[in-house]
Amino acid sequence: MYGAFAAIIGALQQKAGFPFTQIPVEMTKYGGGGVAGWGTVCGTLNGSAAAINLVTADYTKIINELMGWYTTTAFPMYQPATPKANITTTSVAGSPLCHVSVSKWSTASGIKEDSTDRKERCGRLTADVASKAVELLNQYSANSFAASFTPAASVAQCGSCHLKGGTIDNSVGSMDCVQCHTPHN
Amino acid sequence: MYGAFAAIIGALQQKAGFPFTQIPVEMTKYGGGGVAGWGTVCGTLNGSAAAINLVTADYTKIINELMGWYTTTAFPMYQPATPKANITTTSVAGSPLCHVSVSKWSTASGIKEDSTDRKERCGRLTADVASKAVELLNQYSANSFAASFTPAASVAQCGSCHLKGGTIDNSVGSMDCVQCHTPHN
Repeated sequence: MYGAFAAIIGALQQKAGFPFTQIPVEMTKYGGGGVAGWGTVCGTLNGSAAAINLVTADYTKIINELMGWYTTTAFPMYQPATPKANITTTSVAGSPLCHVSVSKWSTASGIKEDSTDRKERCGRLTADVASKAVELLNQYSANSFAASFTPAASVAQCGSCHLKGGTIDNSVGSMDCVQCHTPHN
Repeated sequence: MYGAFAAIIGALQQKAGFPFTQIPVEMTKYGGGGVAGWGTVCGTLNGSAAAINLVTADYTKIINELMGWYTTTAFPMYQPATPKANITTTSVAGSPLCHVSVSKWSTASGIKEDSTDRKERCGRLTADVASKAVELLNQYSANSFAASFTPAASVAQCGSCHLKGGTIDNSVGSMDCVQCHTPHN
């Protein structure tokens, strides 16, 4: 979270100055490991979302696009000039949750979570998500932003009863239902 | 997120003034509905955690305690003087995720998610979590804070192989494993 937020707001502090210089970017350090290590929302999304909220009132649609892109993209993509570890495996999380994202990558790569390689993966992922957030913001600023993300098929299928407008409507969210739930007839 | 963050930091703005008056509390509006409606971490936790991070470098253990308390407590508890809806059902989420927390309450109460009653529930929950966060911060300030939360039994059991220090170590987090996973032998 800190990595993404500080990347975006730090650049604004340098280029635009006030009022961004008032923001203590260190206040986002809590978001690491999906909020204090709990594995909830990936910190790169939490930090990017906070930065997006800070600069536009239209944050919901931009954050939705960023989160959707995150769930469907193979990470990491960024190649640092001087990597701290050589990693080659990429994985698609199918989820905005740290727990799922890390588990998918660790299982795909065979590399333990508590390792320099995994930390390198999350560092590169931070670059990927922060730069995508800036790309979306720049598109928005240039009036060329167009939302393209469609949630997983399960969200529409299960949601026809279980989400807003459905006869049951006992749930909320855009996460892929079948990652945790077994469909029923 | 905004409700919890603005409650805590807004009080500090009024009572302590600078530098809290520099913080644009509206930057946390993105956290509603578990980050832009996605159902990830409950916004009351995200907002309280940001506020805790802003005032102490020892944020991790305080946030961990708050999140643990959240997963095991029947909400809502707060009774407003002039409620917008009369609700009596409480439920325990067993999770820090908005999706789970709302679904448990909606299923327990039989009340639809898209309703004034459910919004009243989340409003009262915001009061519960923000006040607990302040209670923990006050304990910490008075040197009487003592961590008491122990994660769900599954976290230790599954984690003996799947978390840090385990032979597999392919995962991270403190969320109850069996809410989403079926145990294997």
